[in-house]
Amino acid sequence: MKLWAGRFEEETAKEVEEFTASVPFDKRLYREDIQGSIAHAKMLARQGIIAPEEAEAIVRELEAIREEIERGEFEWKLEHEDVHMNIEAALIERLGEVGAKLHTGRSRNDQIALDMRLYIKRVAKEVIASIVELQRALLTLAEAHPDAVMPGYTHLQRAQPVLFAHHLLAYFWMLERDKGRFADAARRADVCPLGAGAMAGSTLPLDPEFVAQELGFAEVFRNSIDAVSDRDFVVEFLSACAILMMHLSRLCEETVLWSTAEFGFIDLADAYATGSSMMPQKKNPDVAELVRAKTGRVYGHLLAMLTALKGLPLSYNRDLQEDKEGLFDTADTVLSSLRVTAGMLRTLKVNEARMRQAADSGYLLATDLAEYLVRKGMPFREAHRVVGELVKHCLREGKDLKGLDDLKAFKMFSELFDEDVFKLLSVDASIAARRTPGGTAPERVKEQIQEAHRRLKTHEHPRS
Amino acid sequence: MKLWAGRFEEETAKEVEEFTASVPFDKRLYREDIQGSIAHAKMLARQGIIAPEEAEAIVRELEAIREEIERGEFEWKLEHEDVHMNIEAALIERLGEVGAKLHTGRSRNDQIALDMRLYIKRVAKEVIASIVELQRALLTLAEAHPDAVMPGYTHLQRAQPVLFAHHLLAYFWMLERDKGRFADAARRADVCPLGAGAMAGSTLPLDPEFVAQELGFAEVFRNSIDAVSDRDFVVEFLSACAILMMHLSRLCEETVLWSTAEFGFIDLADAYATGSSMMPQKKNPDVAELVRAKTGRVYGHLLAMLTALKGLPLSYNRDLQEDKEGLFDTADTVLSSLRVTAGMLRTLKVNEARMRQAADSGYLLATDLAEYLVRKGMPFREAHRVVGELVKHCLREGKDLKGLDDLKAFKMFSELFDEDVFKLLSVDASIAARRTPGGTAPERVKEQIQEAHRRLKTHEHPRS
Amino acid sequence: MKLWAGRFEEETAKEVEEFTASVPFDKRLYREDIQGSIAHAKMLARQGIIAPEEAEAIVRELEAIREEIERGEFEWKLEHEDVHMNIEAALIERLGEVGAKLHTGRSRNDQIALDMRLYIKRVAKEVIASIVELQRALLTLAEAHPDAVMPGYTHLQRAQPVLFAHHLLAYFWMLERDKGRFADAARRADVCPLGAGAMAGSTLPLDPEFVAQELGFAEVFRNSIDAVSDRDFVVEFLSACAILMMHLSRLCEETVLWSTAEFGFIDLADAYATGSSMMPQKKNPDVAELVRAKTGRVYGHLLAMLTALKGLPLSYNRDLQEDKEGLFDTADTVLSSLRVTAGMLRTLKVNEARMRQAADSGYLLATDLAEYLVRKGMPFREAHRVVGELVKHCLREGKDLKGLDDLKAFKMFSELFDEDVFKLLSVDASIAARRTPGGTAPERVKEQIQEAHRRLKTHEHPRS
Amino acid sequence: MKLWAGRFEEETAKEVEEFTASVPFDKRLYREDIQGSIAHAKMLARQGIIAPEEAEAIVRELEAIREEIERGEFEWKLEHEDVHMNIEAALIERLGEVGAKLHTGRSRNDQIALDMRLYIKRVAKEVIASIVELQRALLTLAEAHPDAVMPGYTHLQRAQPVLFAHHLLAYFWMLERDKGRFADAARRADVCPLGAGAMAGSTLPLDPEFVAQELGFAEVFRNSIDAVSDRDFVVEFLSACAILMMHLSRLCEETVLWSTAEFGFIDLADAYATGSSMMPQKKNPDVAELVRAKTGRVYGHLLAMLTALKGLPLSYNRDLQEDKEGLFDTADTVLSSLRVTAGMLRTLKVNEARMRQAADSGYLLATDLAEYLVRKGMPFREAHRVVGELVKHCLREGKDLKGLDDLKAFKMFSELFDEDVFKLLSVDASIAARRTPGGTAPERVKEQIQEAHRRLKTHEHPRS
Repeated sequence: MKLWAGRFEEETAKEVEEFTASVPFDKRLYREDIQGSIAHAKMLARQGIIAPEEAEAIVRELEAIREEIERGEFEWKLEHEDVHMNIEAALIERLGEVGAKLHTGRSRNDQIALDMRLYIKRVAKEVIASIVELQRALLTLAEAHPDAVMPGYTHLQRAQPVLFAHHLLAYFWMLERDKGRFADAARRADVCPLGAGAMAGSTLPLDPEFVAQELGFAEVFRNSIDAVSDRDFVVEFLSACAILMMHLSRLCEETVLWSTAEFGFIDLADAYATGSSMMPQKKNPDVAELVRAKTGRVYGHLLAMLTALKGLPLSYNRDLQEDKEGLFDTADTVLSSLRVTAGMLRTLKVNEARMRQAADSGYLLATDLAEYLVRKGMPFREAHRVVGELVKHCLREGKDLKGLDDLKAFKMFSELFDEDVFKLLSVDASIAARRTPGGTAPERVKEQIQEAHRRLKTHEHPRS
Repeated sequence: MKLWAGRFEEETAKEVEEFTASVPFDKRLYREDIQGSIAHAKMLARQGIIAPEEAEAIVRELEAIREEIERGEFEWKLEHEDVHMNIEAALIERLGEVGAKLHTGRSRNDQIALDMRLYIKRVAKEVIASIVELQRALLTLAEAHPDAVMPGYTHLQRAQPVLFAHHLLAYFWMLERDKGRFADAARRADVCPLGAGAMAGSTLPLDPEFVAQELGFAEVFRNSIDAVSDRDFVVEFLSACAILMMHLSRLCEETVLWSTAEFGFIDLADAYATGSSMMPQKKNPDVAELVRAKTGRVYGHLLAMLTALKGLPLSYNRDLQEDKEGLFDTADTVLSSLRVTAGMLRTLKVNEARMRQAADSGYLLATDLAEYLVRKGMPFREAHRVVGELVKHCLREGKDLKGLDDLKAFKMFSELFDEDVFKLLSVDASIAARRTPGGTAPERVKEQIQEAHRRLKTHEHPRS
Repeated sequence: MKLWAGRFEEETAKEVEEFTASVPFDKRLYREDIQGSIAHAKMLARQGIIAPEEAEAIVRELEAIREEIERGEFEWKLEHEDVHMNIEAALIERLGEVGAKLHTGRSRNDQIALDMRLYIKRVAKEVIASIVELQRALLTLAEAHPDAVMPGYTHLQRAQPVLFAHHLLAYFWMLERDKGRFADAARRADVCPLGAGAMAGSTLPLDPEFVAQELGFAEVFRNSIDAVSDRDFVVEFLSACAILMMHLSRLCEETVLWSTAEFGFIDLADAYATGSSMMPQKKNPDVAELVRAKTGRVYGHLLAMLTALKGLPLSYNRDLQEDKEGLFDTADTVLSSLRVTAGMLRTLKVNEARMRQAADSGYLLATDLAEYLVRKGMPFREAHRVVGELVKHCLREGKDLKGLDDLKAFKMFSELFDEDVFKLLSVDASIAARRTPGGTAPERVKEQIQEAHRRLKTHEHPRS
Repeated sequence: MKLWAGRFEEETAKEVEEFTASVPFDKRLYREDIQGSIAHAKMLARQGIIAPEEAEAIVRELEAIREEIERGEFEWKLEHEDVHMNIEAALIERLGEVGAKLHTGRSRNDQIALDMRLYIKRVAKEVIASIVELQRALLTLAEAHPDAVMPGYTHLQRAQPVLFAHHLLAYFWMLERDKGRFADAARRADVCPLGAGAMAGSTLPLDPEFVAQELGFAEVFRNSIDAVSDRDFVVEFLSACAILMMHLSRLCEETVLWSTAEFGFIDLADAYATGSSMMPQKKNPDVAELVRAKTGRVYGHLLAMLTALKGLPLSYNRDLQEDKEGLFDTADTVLSSLRVTAGMLRTLKVNEARMRQAADSGYLLATDLAEYLVRKGMPFREAHRVVGELVKHCLREGKDLKGLDDLKAFKMFSELFDEDVFKLLSVDASIAARRTPGGTAPERVKEQIQEAHRRLKTHEHPRS
């Protein structure tokens, strides 16, 4: 018999029970649910709605149930639908009348809103901590290869030489912003909804403020209908996850590229690669591929939630139950993706020679030449054209820029070229020259690294 | 030790094993996997690549493994990564050298493509059968209420009276097209990929044609790279599911609306509704709400797969592993949604009186009046304006059209109105008059019902 | 001839020019582009890279070009590809060599990142201002109907009576959080990328700090690769838009419902409704329907951008060009949706009598009865069952709760019922009794309204 | 004054007019709209609803309007909302009473459903024709390089040598399936909805069958409510587009990869590449990048439409207006993407030497060795392990397989190795040996090419 079945004539159909039950996945919220119920029971006693000893019995038994769950001994029943009813039914079974008082002034509508907010607050913290670990891995890798140079790319074409560390740090800053988004999402979720009841509040003298403090919330809900109706805090968390995964997908795409025979910039550890069932020689960057692919999954969960919420009238609708599975899977995916990506970075080997060779070929210094002409007084747009033609000449001759070892060759394109042009034609000179703030020159990258360390120290309070 | 680990120096990291393993979800393909392996083994023997008695042993042992799995006695191991390796490892454990021959000329790349195609073919059939059940439920409901009338709506405003049966049958035709899409998707998936190997075929004398016939495929792959690289057949199936769920979401939205106090057109069975933990009087249309919400989940899985495939170079990439969980969840969701929706329709009660009352109020016959004037010779656009003003007049007077019981009132708006106008002003007359093909007149709806029965009889071979 | 064509042998194919050109849509960024170029030119002069009089000429001519554009006299050319090249080409045409110096130390990569950030900062402010207007409209409507009561709904079933104002204010708080999200997105976009060049910074002595100050940015980029590679700030803005539209879709869904004949709670102004080409009587809530539907469009743009960014290697790729059309359309859609929704709310009429009638029927006070029993000492879960059976009894008898006018009837279900139970059985008593913080009691709603006014006064600095 | 405004007291608000008007984008359907109106007018005359000479006048004037539109002389007015009302208003202006008769028995609801179906049928044909052009470009490229070999990849790691033609043809087959999807979508859209009226049919003696024949439709609608309510045919078309773009994104990803300095397999024509505003040497694969990115846009439009349709009650809702812009943009995007991709393929140069060199290095022949051992009697799994260890040995020694020129080295790993193993160790031998059906051996690829030609000849009637 359902606990709400007073007004019903028939039993719920078996297939409906199976279709609507959420306990197979929301039992995962047992900690939040019990934590909330304990705070609720204490408040009921404090307000004189139940007796102090009743509250104590409830708290004691809820803690016992929590331990049972954690020991795997609690029996979840589909007929009790969800985590809330399973725990309440167990409580009533054990405490009788006293247990039947727990749900006073409360509805599953505000109860689940509470559980979800507690969950998001907790998991947002975990995600931030895992991002920090990945940032550390990036930083460690950057610091381990202070002199490594590689081609910077635009359009996946070699563009200008950069420090490998500079390239890695680009991800550091993306992740820094990601942390900011999770912190903001957690802050907006940090509002206690308990006391909203089904949707209109209660006729009993509840004290939502006390419950909020007890549970460590920063604020109390302002409007009982809003408190049970909205899941924007879930969507915001999922959005932050989608953006984070987008960043990881880019890092992993580069990992896949760099570990190809063609690039050859890195060598993944055997422990972070897998083989082929058919081809004996294969060593594949599966971890990077899977993180990349799982980006789609997280996007999908975001869309699913947005779609489920679209056009719902207020207040609570059963549609809101669909907020859970996608959220849990997203959190799991994000956390494990961060972890394995960090592990992959920590264990890979860098082939500095291959990187340098790639950076040192072709025409990556063309912009340096154009800016050289600018320094000699030529308007930039003209300098761009001149160097473009010089490159075209080299292409026809089958040389790269370093092949132009004769000043006469340069002079064919502009009289402004002089002997000092040869000093420019080195990867290291090019990198050293880009010393504008945020640029790739070694001293600039060092500053970045210092700032990065400073940020990690204060990561507990991310600001943007 | 991994079966592919010959060239590796290190063990796979624990967290990588967990992150990359697919066996927790792809073990669900064990039937397809074993079916494929049996066909493969027979072919190897037929081509003289293994001995006939080796093939027999393999087949026998695979069947034993299948039974073990079905009895729940097979031990799945994460270290063996996926369904394929788990089964192959068990085979080798039992048969030694002979078992080690099964994977000859095969890769997991073509093997999983095979399993997925077998799965899609099977599940598409199940979906079609479940759609048929829902169509039957709609048809039964329509036939049970041949005379029930209701307001037809546009913009959720009452528009014109229609037969309830006509409204229900609109869904019949949507579902008919859905079946066509699943049939097309299954047809395009009906191509056997085994023999493509890792991506280039094999140097051994395999016979893909035999395998295809053995497994009941209509065609054999044409290009080994395509065979292992593409998952368009998964996306097409997911698209068909998304469209189907869109249709169900509309039906369920109407179920929610119709069971409100405000509409009051239907009353859900207690067995297909649930109650509230706080409000003793509540009886909620949870089934309809959940089907509506799960539409988002299916859209999400479609997007996830499209995203995962975007921009992948050929041929197989580990990203393709992400084709499974979303697909399985989609199939489960679609099948259970069809089932409970049909159950909900079968058990609800129709309040014909409320429906008729709603259809019989207000201005739903305004178009009939305009078309009356057209028959008297007035251009339609003019007739529309005249009736519009007549409606405006009624609104100001606070009457509805039936309140205009005096021909003089009509004549104020047009001299063309005559005594025969009063014959028009009834719901039944209005419905009876819409006897254009596909219209709502009773004889037209009867034709639809006959055609619907005809279709269901031949549903085994849906054509569009 | 393209300005970058020095190294090319062939002209761009016509169809490529058309396919790749962005000027048809990015010309919309002319203000941001010219603003950025002016700051850049001043900086070049300040750093001695160009002469002060050159900078002055450039600034003057850029301002002239801006005026031409605003007068609609500027000729945009597809062959110049984008807004940047069109303006630079015009400058060179007018100023010759001097114009050719503007692009010194700059790339379109950092230039477009700048334009986009300026655009987002501006448009986020506009969105926040338009949200405030909608909040005002909600607040005004709430204050105009202080005593209006309506049924609060869960699952679209009548649940408990609430104040109409309380229901409206639920949207106020959703929108309040939306503003917080836009403010956060704008803050994270508030980083000046100019000086990052193509991706590695510059060999010229640029001063990005000066440019940032000149343009009113809060921060300067930390890493040149990150500065040109990422569009997370676009995605974050789009996410905030998607959540906002989700909220609007719910408000509009309710508008559609409330203006049906069945609910009849509101009457839209003729100026905010449209008619039918065929049915003379129709008046449709098109505005609300379109806002609801456009939610899909905004979700689509969010996913388009997430998809485009997925798996892109660093740094700039032409894929990033796809950040614009969807963003512009989203901003336009959001701004116009906010505006028409506010207009719709400002002009609709409320049918308080219909609302009250709906709230005053049926079993909406069942929870009040259960909580009454709790106050008399019955455990809530028991009280819920008792009232559930009382409701079942009424359903069988065809009465609603107010039909139970005899204490004996109550006593049949519990001896705890007493004469004072009849005082409960009124809508107004029920609402007045829900005086827990955030509840629907009039004094609580008044507090909300006061707080809402306070927020609107300080909307310039939204915090959450 | 709106043509439907008879019952309205107020003018539409200006901002509502702008927000709801669709003529800025749906005017694009003028051809379909006029074609439908001509058929409708003829039918009205044939059924005696209007006079033959009235129908003639209407047809003549509609044709005149069409020509005006095509000459750019027709004045579209926002106040007339959409393409339908603009044309009807012009007709009335010119023909007076006669023009006012055109809309008899018709609603914009069935009219727009008709226009959309005609549009989809037409554009699906165009897409199929453009796919054929791309298939031809692939085929031509394949035939131009019959002997080119390249590394086949899995996980972007070199896997086995394949013919370049074989790799290209993989795309041929994907596109072949895409054509099938468009043909199926067009077939399901090939149902004439005219005669459904607003949603219930008509009281006038319309002949929908005649209209359908006149317009070349295969079928007539079965249910008037379904006819105006559903847009599944739009979603199905968009799904087919999304899958097609997914395929193009993969081809373009490979184009980007192959034109990197690292791969160097192809060289794009200057006419199909663009340069950098800052870096004089750059030549970028912008076309491929944009096609890849536009995949996101098409996914977005698909999801926008799915979202807009989710949970809509029957029948017509204004939400359906959102079916157009995304569809038009999708069709344009798909058609131009197909065209430029074909152009890019037609003009690129293939660097056969670089490809062969890449295929001829490393361990791509490891599977050949394992299958060699199988032929000598070793179980495959064992052979895989043996060759894996051999590869490990080579890796430690810094050699590739061809470096093993001494039989003794092989014998260390298995006694089964013999002199004939050396015959295997060539790219050409490996390719020639994969002669299983669908494999990469030259004769197999030739068969594919023949089949491909056969398909293109019969492309008018694609079957799967």
